[in-house]
Amino acid sequence: MPHTELEYPKEPYGTVKRYSTRATYALRTIHTIVNTSPILHVSFNAPSSPFPTILPMLGQMGSFARPSADEGDVLDLYLHGYVSSRIMNTSRQSSSEAPGLPVCVAASHLDGLVLALTPNSHSYNYRSAVLFGHAFVVEDPDERLYAMQLITDGVVPGRWENTRVPPNRAEMSSTSVLKVKIVTGSAKIREGPPGDEKHDKENGEVVGRVWTGVVPVYQTLGQPVPGPYNQVEGIPGYLKGFVEDSNEWAREVAVEAATKSGAKKSDNDE
Amino acid sequence: MPHTELEYPKEPYGTVKRYSTRATYALRTIHTIVNTSPILHVSFNAPSSPFPTILPMLGQMGSFARPSADEGDVLDLYLHGYVSSRIMNTSRQSSSEAPGLPVCVAASHLDGLVLALTPNSHSYNYRSAVLFGHAFVVEDPDERLYAMQLITDGVVPGRWENTRVPPNRAEMSSTSVLKVKIVTGSAKIREGPPGDEKHDKENGEVVGRVWTGVVPVYQTLGQPVPGPYNQVEGIPGYLKGFVEDSNEWAREVAVEAATKSGAKKSDNDE
Repeated sequence: MPHTELEYPKEPYGTVKRYSTRATYALRTIHTIVNTSPILHVSFNAPSSPFPTILPMLGQMGSFARPSADEGDVLDLYLHGYVSSRIMNTSRQSSSEAPGLPVCVAASHLDGLVLALTPNSHSYNYRSAVLFGHAFVVEDPDERLYAMQLITDGVVPGRWENTRVPPNRAEMSSTSVLKVKIVTGSAKIREGPPGDEKHDKENGEVVGRVWTGVVPVYQTLGQPVPGPYNQVEGIPGYLKGFVEDSNEWAREVAVEAATKSGAKKSDNDE
Repeated sequence: MPHTELEYPKEPYGTVKRYSTRATYALRTIHTIVNTSPILHVSFNAPSSPFPTILPMLGQMGSFARPSADEGDVLDLYLHGYVSSRIMNTSRQSSSEAPGLPVCVAASHLDGLVLALTPNSHSYNYRSAVLFGHAFVVEDPDERLYAMQLITDGVVPGRWENTRVPPNRAEMSSTSVLKVKIVTGSAKIREGPPGDEKHDKENGEVVGRVWTGVVPVYQTLGQPVPGPYNQVEGIPGYLKGFVEDSNEWAREVAVEAATKSGAKKSDNDE
């Protein structure tokens, strides 16, 4: 862990202008939002497309050179994909001298529906992060294996060692891993109750009629459903523990965000 | 409702190549995935940025010309934003003759963690959609009002009429609405139990040791938390009903996807 909290540089394309009091550039905050997001949205420009493309992908941040690095450190983003998919081919076309495929990666957690007196002051409680960087196809088999384990354990901690590993030759050759070297990134967090305009809060008729507050929103993992060829009785401890911890943590984050005090007037939402 | 199910045209940039058996181009499926997604990820290219940008936004599909249109019809996507934000300015720079700002919009629902015998066969149950189109700033006040109501009621049905409406002049001028005219789109859906390779399923040691199945994943709305200046006693019926219905529906979708039979061998995942 570094002694000071590292921050990403503020580039014009990565600087949060709207509600800038909600913005942070701290690596630890940004990387944690990304690593707890089960789906990442990855945007890139394909050569012959008139539109940018977004792919929903799995990914985790880590450091192959220093696996003990934590979320406050400089990390790479590893994305999992299929060897012939468009983003992989486009990245592959980047030569070793070229800077890789420019991508933007977004991770967003919805924590609550913020219901205010007026539609314009409605908002969400959320934690969102974006990263900008260059994507490369990982060629080194050891680094690919590192990334595959990182991503699998990102879905369920400890899952890798509780499956049939290592991947065989066919599996290794059919799976590609993209590595995104991060140039910069930012996060935005909104929490707390609604923040309406003064003239609405002083309007007795409106305040007497319109319910205001926050509906917490969180992801729930249900009771695991055994598949047709499962032969293991009961739910293994690492899985059961993960389901319970994940549910408790997700609920706590959303309820805490809903009840947090100190939403500033400057944070008024439309 | 149209007599036949409409489909989006298959353009090279919008055609699903990987797991194409999971793909659909049906407007009804795609629009339903978008309209039930509380956060949309919108990608565009800003003039001076070396990277595409992704913004998390709120949006709903509808038809201002024919408000009774349902999700199987040709619809526009309305996105809510702040008047000076980058995407709005970039869209505004499109002249009336220009085709608008090219955007890609993604909506993704995670329905389950699909845990297989090998890391390579792990997958998610999910419903994801992408739309490609051109974004314009909506100038007509009536159309903006239509879109603002559509988006507010997309968060909580009936919320609009239960707040202080209509928006005043300052609110109307500080809020912009983007309209995306859709060119094409597609959706991908994965459901069912894990699908491992035959040689792993026949390996008694592996099958006897590795738990396989699906952990359902769904969004939960918690007990609404009244804000500091709320004066309405209890939770209003429309809000209570929405929380209950939303939770029941979300849970049902995830559990049904987990237990659905008929995952084909061709759908084997890595």
